[in-house]
Amino acid sequence: MKIYDRAGFPNPTRIRIVVAQKELESKIEFVPVDLIGAEHKQAAFLAKNPAGVLPVLELDDGTLISECTAITEYLDNLDGNPELTGRTASEKALIHMMQRRAEAFVLDPLGIFFHHATPGLGQALQAYKSPEWQGRTEMGQREAEKAQEGLHYFNSVLAEQQFLAGDAFSMADITLLAGLAFAEALGVVPADLPALKAWQDRVAEIPAVKNRSGQSFLPEDLKRMGY
Amino acid sequence: MKIYDRAGFPNPTRIRIVVAQKELESKIEFVPVDLIGAEHKQAAFLAKNPAGVLPVLELDDGTLISECTAITEYLDNLDGNPELTGRTASEKALIHMMQRRAEAFVLDPLGIFFHHATPGLGQALQAYKSPEWQGRTEMGQREAEKAQEGLHYFNSVLAEQQFLAGDAFSMADITLLAGLAFAEALGVVPADLPALKAWQDRVAEIPAVKNRSGQSFLPEDLKRMGY
Repeated sequence: MKIYDRAGFPNPTRIRIVVAQKELESKIEFVPVDLIGAEHKQAAFLAKNPAGVLPVLELDDGTLISECTAITEYLDNLDGNPELTGRTASEKALIHMMQRRAEAFVLDPLGIFFHHATPGLGQALQAYKSPEWQGRTEMGQREAEKAQEGLHYFNSVLAEQQFLAGDAFSMADITLLAGLAFAEALGVVPADLPALKAWQDRVAEIPAVKNRSGQSFLPEDLKRMGY
Repeated sequence: MKIYDRAGFPNPTRIRIVVAQKELESKIEFVPVDLIGAEHKQAAFLAKNPAGVLPVLELDDGTLISECTAITEYLDNLDGNPELTGRTASEKALIHMMQRRAEAFVLDPLGIFFHHATPGLGQALQAYKSPEWQGRTEMGQREAEKAQEGLHYFNSVLAEQQFLAGDAFSMADITLLAGLAFAEALGVVPADLPALKAWQDRVAEIPAVKNRSGQSFLPEDLKRMGY
């Protein structure tokens, strides 16, 4: 199998953790995509994923799977033991609910903030941004506030339970981890979220999170760009 | 079990079709929520779903499940035969990918268009809209164009295969059906999408879609408001 990604970015990191958790590193070739050069907005990549985002999983028979939830469902179910996406109806429901909240409350608004209220990934990508967002930094800024409200919500959830979907580490925790790391890189994490911080420390000790297929949470690209 | 919803709206309709497909009508009490009066933005409802959207499934033990994907996973897995969300790793992956695309490419942008470029659900909800969107009708309008681009994409997919995720009707088809019905109610469906129209006619004959727990696709609320 191949995974098209860019090391260290939030969504690629989610799947790198899944790959590590499922011990699939030896079966996957990671193919880097030049996000800074807008390779993911060109025809060759759009033929793989019309949404124009990373990562994309390509199976040996050529089947293309994008969207982190879908890639995670695939990798997690290969061995018949879906520990990350849930084994029972209740587990699946709570994991998918919290996973979608981690996207909608934290990761998605941070993406808008990053691309529309900061220099984002630089000049090459400007042409692919929605023109109606240009010059509307205050709308992008509002998205950072939404992500902060989201982190407060998850702090309240994690004050009551060990992991986002209950007693076990799951896909939902991976999504929030990526969101929180992105928020840290962008400098927008609110102070005083003790349960969230305790969870982050706890989850960081999980081998798949520690290893995450060898990738840092903060991409070298962003470090070079001064984040 | 209880489902808090509002008959005929897109996301409630998705779950009504799932309930019909899984023959669960007799086990579920539908509890109406006053969307027009902004009941879903008040504390009592936000305690059930902090995202402030419908529908919400409440299990007999009090567990609350929101997000359509999560509710569908629950209902579909109760009988051990997940026909709508996939039985194998490949089926699950393709269904979740296409389901997320149906949301991101069609249903989500239509929701923004509806709330920010049309009168939406009226006065009571105005106070709960993001203030930075006020008076920016052209940004809402752009979302309708995105949804139209999405419908063109799905037309191209359905020119090659019977259903969104391959040979079988799934959760992804239900999401697109709801999106297409919403686009029709809002008058933004592009002409000349023959494969999409043929799919819509074909899927309309599926008993669960025809019946959809007794609900119209166009809510009475919208008809009264002139849509």
